[in-house]
Amino acid sequence: MIKVGIIGGTGYTGVELLRLLSVHPQAELKVITSRAEAGRKVADLFPNLRGFVDLAFIEPDPGLLAGCDVVFSATPNGVAMTHARALLEAGVRLIDIAADFRLSDPGLWEKWYGMPHACPDLLSGAVYGLPEVNRERIRAARLIANPGCYPTAVQLGLLPLLERGLIDPGHLVADAKSGVSGAGRKADVHTLFSEASDNFKAYAVGGHRHWPEICQGLERVSGVPIGLTFVPHLVPMVRGIHATLYARLTDRTADLQAVFEERYRAEPFVDVLPAGSHPDTRSVRASNLCRIAVHRPGGGDTVVVLAVIDNLVKGAAGQAVQNMNIAFGLEETTGLAAPAILP
Amino acid sequence: MIKVGIIGGTGYTGVELLRLLSVHPQAELKVITSRAEAGRKVADLFPNLRGFVDLAFIEPDPGLLAGCDVVFSATPNGVAMTHARALLEAGVRLIDIAADFRLSDPGLWEKWYGMPHACPDLLSGAVYGLPEVNRERIRAARLIANPGCYPTAVQLGLLPLLERGLIDPGHLVADAKSGVSGAGRKADVHTLFSEASDNFKAYAVGGHRHWPEICQGLERVSGVPIGLTFVPHLVPMVRGIHATLYARLTDRTADLQAVFEERYRAEPFVDVLPAGSHPDTRSVRASNLCRIAVHRPGGGDTVVVLAVIDNLVKGAAGQAVQNMNIAFGLEETTGLAAPAILP
Amino acid sequence: MIKVGIIGGTGYTGVELLRLLSVHPQAELKVITSRAEAGRKVADLFPNLRGFVDLAFIEPDPGLLAGCDVVFSATPNGVAMTHARALLEAGVRLIDIAADFRLSDPGLWEKWYGMPHACPDLLSGAVYGLPEVNRERIRAARLIANPGCYPTAVQLGLLPLLERGLIDPGHLVADAKSGVSGAGRKADVHTLFSEASDNFKAYAVGGHRHWPEICQGLERVSGVPIGLTFVPHLVPMVRGIHATLYARLTDRTADLQAVFEERYRAEPFVDVLPAGSHPDTRSVRASNLCRIAVHRPGGGDTVVVLAVIDNLVKGAAGQAVQNMNIAFGLEETTGLAAPAILP
Amino acid sequence: MIKVGIIGGTGYTGVELLRLLSVHPQAELKVITSRAEAGRKVADLFPNLRGFVDLAFIEPDPGLLAGCDVVFSATPNGVAMTHARALLEAGVRLIDIAADFRLSDPGLWEKWYGMPHACPDLLSGAVYGLPEVNRERIRAARLIANPGCYPTAVQLGLLPLLERGLIDPGHLVADAKSGVSGAGRKADVHTLFSEASDNFKAYAVGGHRHWPEICQGLERVSGVPIGLTFVPHLVPMVRGIHATLYARLTDRTADLQAVFEERYRAEPFVDVLPAGSHPDTRSVRASNLCRIAVHRPGGGDTVVVLAVIDNLVKGAAGQAVQNMNIAFGLEETTGLAAPAILP
Repeated sequence: MIKVGIIGGTGYTGVELLRLLSVHPQAELKVITSRAEAGRKVADLFPNLRGFVDLAFIEPDPGLLAGCDVVFSATPNGVAMTHARALLEAGVRLIDIAADFRLSDPGLWEKWYGMPHACPDLLSGAVYGLPEVNRERIRAARLIANPGCYPTAVQLGLLPLLERGLIDPGHLVADAKSGVSGAGRKADVHTLFSEASDNFKAYAVGGHRHWPEICQGLERVSGVPIGLTFVPHLVPMVRGIHATLYARLTDRTADLQAVFEERYRAEPFVDVLPAGSHPDTRSVRASNLCRIAVHRPGGGDTVVVLAVIDNLVKGAAGQAVQNMNIAFGLEETTGLAAPAILP
Repeated sequence: MIKVGIIGGTGYTGVELLRLLSVHPQAELKVITSRAEAGRKVADLFPNLRGFVDLAFIEPDPGLLAGCDVVFSATPNGVAMTHARALLEAGVRLIDIAADFRLSDPGLWEKWYGMPHACPDLLSGAVYGLPEVNRERIRAARLIANPGCYPTAVQLGLLPLLERGLIDPGHLVADAKSGVSGAGRKADVHTLFSEASDNFKAYAVGGHRHWPEICQGLERVSGVPIGLTFVPHLVPMVRGIHATLYARLTDRTADLQAVFEERYRAEPFVDVLPAGSHPDTRSVRASNLCRIAVHRPGGGDTVVVLAVIDNLVKGAAGQAVQNMNIAFGLEETTGLAAPAILP
Repeated sequence: MIKVGIIGGTGYTGVELLRLLSVHPQAELKVITSRAEAGRKVADLFPNLRGFVDLAFIEPDPGLLAGCDVVFSATPNGVAMTHARALLEAGVRLIDIAADFRLSDPGLWEKWYGMPHACPDLLSGAVYGLPEVNRERIRAARLIANPGCYPTAVQLGLLPLLERGLIDPGHLVADAKSGVSGAGRKADVHTLFSEASDNFKAYAVGGHRHWPEICQGLERVSGVPIGLTFVPHLVPMVRGIHATLYARLTDRTADLQAVFEERYRAEPFVDVLPAGSHPDTRSVRASNLCRIAVHRPGGGDTVVVLAVIDNLVKGAAGQAVQNMNIAFGLEETTGLAAPAILP
Repeated sequence: MIKVGIIGGTGYTGVELLRLLSVHPQAELKVITSRAEAGRKVADLFPNLRGFVDLAFIEPDPGLLAGCDVVFSATPNGVAMTHARALLEAGVRLIDIAADFRLSDPGLWEKWYGMPHACPDLLSGAVYGLPEVNRERIRAARLIANPGCYPTAVQLGLLPLLERGLIDPGHLVADAKSGVSGAGRKADVHTLFSEASDNFKAYAVGGHRHWPEICQGLERVSGVPIGLTFVPHLVPMVRGIHATLYARLTDRTADLQAVFEERYRAEPFVDVLPAGSHPDTRSVRASNLCRIAVHRPGGGDTVVVLAVIDNLVKGAAGQAVQNMNIAFGLEETTGLAAPAILP
């Protein structure tokens, strides 16, 4: 059994991680820390876990965490980087579900996250945990930067086209829509039910933290500079991301459906839908799948890719467990094989 | 492996049954029939099952069904009773998730369901599949009448009080609220998103089919006639039932919290919450649990019981699988042990 | 034109009051105060009012408020009572939409609201602003206590029965359901979209501040002590209250439908639906109407009353404007005559 | 008073038209026809209109319709064209809220709507009822083709840029999102609450009927062929359209904010938000406004326009009333001046 620790875990990524780990056959949850909730039973905060998780939150305890095989950091940005060195030195694998180790360039990190990076020397050793790109490196990784939710959907949707050089990389459009749980479990007026329900809006059109992360990822696979317009929107639903991606084809002869099917044939968590499909976010609700459809409206020179994930699973906690499975040599789908909940 | 057949299965109970069975370690889905959808892949109708259920719907085929160990009937009311005799004679166990075998009195059935019963002689052999009451009889049953969704929540909430004679059985009030999936997957104006969303209403105050089923169940445990006012309401959510139950205490000295805890101590799927709790429907979403809290506001003579279930799981497909587990001698929680999905 | 001031007004009652007053033909909004938002344009906070309300919030200014004909207090509980004396002495009519002047007994107020009352001597002069009961007193009132949202729906539903002595006043049940806007525009985890959406729960079963207000109102009309079990619930919708009311008939011969129709025949904002109806909350969305249906299931001795209002209109801002209309001798429906928004 | 008739009116456009007309000071509703609902009171179908609209639906009656000053056709596509000639010959103005007269080319109409046009000779006389483009022609029009919901939002968002030749007209992207009421009040599985709630998806990526309408409109103002990729999506909310529009700037020196403000300065129903804004759909809920924001992310060569309307008001019934106001020489905002409902 893999001994697991969690730092943080009082947010939606945390409860989802706990839900997945509570029934994971190879993981044993040993410790969960939270300064704010220390002393409180996990199941008091998250009533779905009553009878499934008996632990209580404790104050952060370096010794207990150091005794784990893997620690997930499910905290706000900027916390994992303060724990990373000690955990790595203790031989613990660290999977950060926040953003601390996603951007390789510490200057870029500081610019977008508003604070200097606490351990820039560790960035080069961190592996970006998108298994569909980095599976082999994840196997050997000690420090895994779990991708953001939007970046997971957008990258999986554009990768096959960029890897083959089929589209103009300089003018990509990612029109992305997220359920409200993506904003976290923090008390905030704009995510109150009475504000977010029966409403739809774009936000952060001027610039969003996931933009540099997406560009970095796409530049690595394409080898060329990326020009991306990224517009996120808030959808009145709890879970789910739908990315609608637009690109100009540079090669109009390619069989796009075949390109996607071949690229993801062996991937356990990417499902390329039949031609003409429109994936529902609910078709992946509570599951680790990404479902993708590719269209070329009117047979023109614009390709439209539709990619859906559950932002809390493939976009956060599920992908983190997938990374743990890979890093510990388990079957990659262990504990992640349940179908989505529909309706 | 238990060979499983499903009659119907194109509604929400059907997709939930398929979801549960697809990961049940002891069940093997052999055949699923639907006249309307014959020839169509199950996963085309229910995209969450893509990659999990490879079967296609077929026309009803008595031979194939007769080769199963158990058949679930997930059809509209009035269909199972036309299949029951043949299946039972073939030695197949039948679990009817509709209402055909719930009422022992065929006259009562005809009155509330508007058609004569096709096999009244089978009614006395049918076991009402509420495990918390009838577990021993279910073990030996060939024909199981799976309870309705409202009846499950209301009976579990009132049983402990009636069994002990603590309340006036003649003036019970069940104010029940259901998510919209309880109305099924049938095209209907009143359950359109634009009708049911951002709205709340009562319905069928004059009389609902679950009323005689609840009364029958409560009369069996109490041994006296029941006077019940039952008012169902439609909640703008997909899943979940919340029953708010009111009764007049005849014994004001009883420790009601203890009564409930003792009654359900050994039950794997009934969770009595600590005193003062208010269960959320989402705390049981996609799970087979019923969570219950008991209150006595102001220390007065009225007891208020709050009971929540997922109408598609403990209120339908999950309880059907629980009944299958019992009838086939499996661990009762097999395939039903995952925590609820929250948020 | 009536010169209107608003104290507070940054919550949902405030924006609704502003919406109604902005198109009221006899009211002119002169001043709106908010410590937290002073200097900010009202329309920046509430984008629906862009182009309709040009005022900015200012710091509370006794002089400006004293120059108004009427001041609405749309603040949290406990604020209006600190302004009341000065306003009344300046000859300003005060309509408090919060709870400060609803309970006549200052001891009861202190018990339920957790603070001593600042001006108990003013309580006896305050008029409880339920026009269907107190219209004549409202005409002459200087200080109007606008009723709570639940109390409005529950009282309107039970009044006709209690006034005629048709029900047992000692064992009333009010099972009430409210949209989430009833919890206000305050950042709070439990009213986040991801907490309140796709969920249903009861709350405050042990005791809610509207319970003594309802009891006080019902005791005044019935002249006898009231025994009321009141259970509020949170519905995943923005607006609306649905009260489901249960009582034991003491007179089984009365024509209940006629009783309700007669009682409310002349009321502009109470609509008694035809026998057998089930009112939708959306049928009164954004309107000042209360719609009511009365049932007697199975012809038994229990009467069930269904009453719906929009909690922000008839349950708050709309009733406040109705009270202003009455107090200033206007046609009672002035500015309140638009139909509900459906869908 | 303008004598008004309505053909159809049993859908959401119909109820919204009735709501607006019931309080319009210059309109008098004389007749409303529906084959399916003939004999039924309007207020029985739409409970919000109880007390506001006393009419009952009648069978289509050419004589009564011919006695009206204006007839709105709020039917499915293909009905208005069977009534048009008779009404026009009787001197009645006809405002078709469906699509029959939107496309000037009858061949294009037949291709996208699947039936031959019944009166192609009338097409050239029909005026496309987008007041912001065709106000003068609407004043004199006898036959007004009320624009589609998506086309209203997309055209208003792109017009200022195309009129000035600021963007590449050959590669426009309109990523549009609609509330579910856009799908109408027809019983359909895919718009059931349990299908559409807590879900998000694109649809009709391969081709949507509003695409040729948008292209026709944009070509008229730009004078050049339009290349448009249009992807509609379904949002789990009742009302609202949000169009997110992407175009490549051909002139990077223009002050885009000023361009929009100047273009719409005199428009009563188009509100250009301050730079940096993100309009909410709820900020126009139940109102006839279109709110628009323009962005240039990162100061690059891509312009992003955000435009929101209420699909049932500015996208249907409200714009139809606006057209009536113009055609009858009334103040354009008559009956349309109420602020949006928020929350």
